[in-house]
Amino acid sequence: MKLLEERIKKDGKVLPGDILKIDSFLNHQIDVELMEEIGKEFHRLFADSDPDKILTIESSGIAIASLTSKYFGYIPIVFAKKTVAANMAKDTYEAKEHSYTRNIEYTVQVAREFLHEGEKVLILDDFLANGEAMNSLIDICHQAKAQIVGCGAVVCKTYQPGEQRIRDMGYDVEVLARVKSMTDDGEIEFE
Amino acid sequence: MKLLEERIKKDGKVLPGDILKIDSFLNHQIDVELMEEIGKEFHRLFADSDPDKILTIESSGIAIASLTSKYFGYIPIVFAKKTVAANMAKDTYEAKEHSYTRNIEYTVQVAREFLHEGEKVLILDDFLANGEAMNSLIDICHQAKAQIVGCGAVVCKTYQPGEQRIRDMGYDVEVLARVKSMTDDGEIEFE
Repeated sequence: MKLLEERIKKDGKVLPGDILKIDSFLNHQIDVELMEEIGKEFHRLFADSDPDKILTIESSGIAIASLTSKYFGYIPIVFAKKTVAANMAKDTYEAKEHSYTRNIEYTVQVAREFLHEGEKVLILDDFLANGEAMNSLIDICHQAKAQIVGCGAVVCKTYQPGEQRIRDMGYDVEVLARVKSMTDDGEIEFE
Repeated sequence: MKLLEERIKKDGKVLPGDILKIDSFLNHQIDVELMEEIGKEFHRLFADSDPDKILTIESSGIAIASLTSKYFGYIPIVFAKKTVAANMAKDTYEAKEHSYTRNIEYTVQVAREFLHEGEKVLILDDFLANGEAMNSLIDICHQAKAQIVGCGAVVCKTYQPGEQRIRDMGYDVEVLARVKSMTDDGEIEFE
């Protein structure tokens, strides 16, 4: 997605530790007009998948999912909750997510009442790095016996294993901006 | 807002401890079409305030702010981050928020680069109970010397002090659904 790549080149910051920071328009401050374009693009890519629901994860996935829903006829979105406390609850589906950035283990939760057997689910998230977050959402869909019709991410780095890992599980993966390389002085190249 | 009140009556759950749960359409699963109507209504109520930016707080405020932005010409939104760790950082504005529901103290953070002196800020959130969350956002605006042009909440309980507390600080407060009373068997009355 050209518009997004240009925006990442313009406003993205490369931080030590191979971190791409795009919190001026996606992760902290949000450019909602850009989110509309992202929503349109996800709809174009997954138009044939006919999802009943979008599943994402707090916090950065919420705006993305919210602005994508409209293009699928205002299907509901569900955002998984992330907690460091491992409070097993009977009425939730739960999965573990290891965050490499923060070196911390999260419990990811979705209330059982909002994910049903046979429901067609489109999974969306901001970053696809090692695939940990997306994998936890896939795990939760499996528990609910929901049908995953696609997995979309706004950004990935092609030299990280996440995208291939999810594809190897047999899912249709679409990424809007594929970072091929980043240099310490802030040069970002796309595939 | 009639549509919202009807939805709360239909799908809201009253839990022990005077808790109103509306996570089937606002706090966990999100009805994006309803969010559009909420966005339109916030725009109608704050049309004259001409904000440059919407400030909200993760996670439940994000969809509300995202769907309101469009009606103000796609102004950027910024969501404050909530953490239990008190990691004072030089590049953020920070305030404390005491959550009565969870009996826990949060640190609320906004990066300095996303809130500027003189900027006209509309503060939006889901619930206005004791006013703790909104007060932390107001505090952060004060630190940034930003100009608060209005404070909006989707739901409040009129017998809790939050709404009056913010109004007493001199701010224009608008609430879309004012709960007057709730009974243990789930009856919800509006003002």
